[in-house]
Amino acid sequence: MSIVSLDQPESSAGRRLLEPFKGRALAPPPIWLMRQAGRYLPEYREIRAKAGGFLDLCYTPSLAAEVTLQPIRRFGFDAAILFSDILVVADALGQRVEFVDGEGPKLAPLSSAGELRQLNPGSVAAKFGLIFETVARVRQDLPRETALIGFCGAPWTVATYMVGGGTSVDQAEARSWAYRDPDGFESLIAILAEVSVEYLDGQARAGSDAVQIFDSWAGSLPDDEFERWVIAPTASIVRTLRARHPGLPVIGFPRGAGHNAQRYLAGTELDGFGCDTQMPLGAMRRLAQEARTVVQGNLDPLLLAAGGARMEARARAIVEAMAGARFIFNLGHGIVPATPPENVARLVEIVRAPGTS
Amino acid sequence: MSIVSLDQPESSAGRRLLEPFKGRALAPPPIWLMRQAGRYLPEYREIRAKAGGFLDLCYTPSLAAEVTLQPIRRFGFDAAILFSDILVVADALGQRVEFVDGEGPKLAPLSSAGELRQLNPGSVAAKFGLIFETVARVRQDLPRETALIGFCGAPWTVATYMVGGGTSVDQAEARSWAYRDPDGFESLIAILAEVSVEYLDGQARAGSDAVQIFDSWAGSLPDDEFERWVIAPTASIVRTLRARHPGLPVIGFPRGAGHNAQRYLAGTELDGFGCDTQMPLGAMRRLAQEARTVVQGNLDPLLLAAGGARMEARARAIVEAMAGARFIFNLGHGIVPATPPENVARLVEIVRAPGTS
Repeated sequence: MSIVSLDQPESSAGRRLLEPFKGRALAPPPIWLMRQAGRYLPEYREIRAKAGGFLDLCYTPSLAAEVTLQPIRRFGFDAAILFSDILVVADALGQRVEFVDGEGPKLAPLSSAGELRQLNPGSVAAKFGLIFETVARVRQDLPRETALIGFCGAPWTVATYMVGGGTSVDQAEARSWAYRDPDGFESLIAILAEVSVEYLDGQARAGSDAVQIFDSWAGSLPDDEFERWVIAPTASIVRTLRARHPGLPVIGFPRGAGHNAQRYLAGTELDGFGCDTQMPLGAMRRLAQEARTVVQGNLDPLLLAAGGARMEARARAIVEAMAGARFIFNLGHGIVPATPPENVARLVEIVRAPGTS
Repeated sequence: MSIVSLDQPESSAGRRLLEPFKGRALAPPPIWLMRQAGRYLPEYREIRAKAGGFLDLCYTPSLAAEVTLQPIRRFGFDAAILFSDILVVADALGQRVEFVDGEGPKLAPLSSAGELRQLNPGSVAAKFGLIFETVARVRQDLPRETALIGFCGAPWTVATYMVGGGTSVDQAEARSWAYRDPDGFESLIAILAEVSVEYLDGQARAGSDAVQIFDSWAGSLPDDEFERWVIAPTASIVRTLRARHPGLPVIGFPRGAGHNAQRYLAGTELDGFGCDTQMPLGAMRRLAQEARTVVQGNLDPLLLAAGGARMEARARAIVEAMAGARFIFNLGHGIVPATPPENVARLVEIVRAPGTS
């Protein structure tokens, strides 16, 4: 076995997931699934039961690495994605973050610029270090041909949780703060953009082959606010990261961006665009052609959970619509816990079927 | 005073809101606001306190008419919109619907086709009659120049509540049912489309000058599902209604439709398109030009609540972007309870300012 240094770009040769970013359209397309490590897998639930709290699992490199690898062993995806959570950044900054089973995250909400002093960007290293260790362990144990994707939440989306205190229907608290006190809100976004760069940088150094920026709540903003809170901070992260890691593919996933998708791609210069479930296949194809970007997506996770002939037909329709484009098969949002693992196996089989154009 | 029969189309002459539907672009544009009757008004809260439950208020014509008229007296909008709720249809069908203060609606959720037998489309007349009486009362007391807009929820959106039991982040229950058992779900949608036509028809007969179909959760569906659960039932409602009320403007509001907006307009043949907060101004303008439809929208209600110079600038930007188009000024979603009424007064002033092109 040759000695592979992570600083040698050769080490990533042969990883199919990375080919589209080098300009090649693959048939069949590479495949991985958002939230592919998680509760729908019995082997995950076993580890989770041992780990204590959800954040304990994220901060225990041996266990977090193990759950990252589980779906690769079972399904042979073209990429592993670090098992973690976008709110690790809020937690590392010193905000109180709890994960209550069945209820989602609960944070002690921030509501004014004065409260930003509670955050400590200088203190993130210890917790980030545990995540970087997870990345390094995963890379070590991952098959040579499997890419490893790191990630963070986009500043806007992380801010919606930090300000709103949890998941919400309309992100009203963060949106209201941004209207009421744009300068104060800008300070929060700036802190998040700054630590997110360090976070992704560390993940890249530890062995991530690509990174994804999850902007799950990008859809709640009007165009001018979208420009300021989604595009600008994402562009700043991409710029800084690219200077440090030339050639590292950076994928954006601005869920719900709708008509703001083209503007997002033009403004951020991302390498890849994750399409949500709502993006029509025609629009996905046009995006791949016009924006000269790698497009990823977008099977509905609820259809994957339902399975059967309709799921299979839709998966084939997506592959066919994207034939010839630089495309990565994925879901349009994360796997849901009720998904039967056999549906996932069947999906991988379909996407990789010979004859899949 | 002349005797005005509601069956005479002449009776609506002079209502500015209707002009764009006759092909005229007005400057300044007509204005009304979604949820303009409601909790942000102290005079509403007074009536609400007297009425008992929220549904009691909807079903008490004298009180429902009064709260419908309140914002007209205060702000002189170009249209009143019936005070009611999209879940009146679920309630009239016999589903248990409760409105818990501060928590939103709670319904005893339906989860299978077998349970549809609990619904009784034959029994809706009594409750619908109370709504129609409200419409007639409002029309009688409304200034001659003010249009009256009736409404219903779109079948898809009403179904998300009936199946999910309330407001949800992702409408997972309804979407899952639609995947698991499309024929069963189709039966629910068909019932809703059928009674919605009767509901809108009655509102039109009672004196509504236009109607709006609220599809607040249209954004959660992939293109093929959007076609089946949003476009098809809406098209069926529009078709039947148009046959009975030629010339009655029907506005759709498919919130979050994103890239599916053009397809929605092409497939439904609606007269007007309500833009959500997310629709960029450029896209709104293109929609008005290409789709030859009346466009309505789309100030962010949270910006209206915040008020001040940014709200004023954005309101002016919307008016300017839509100059020359057949346009109705509105919000991109409903007014929020925290909105200071003086911000609404200021908005009306700005939109109507001389020099507003």
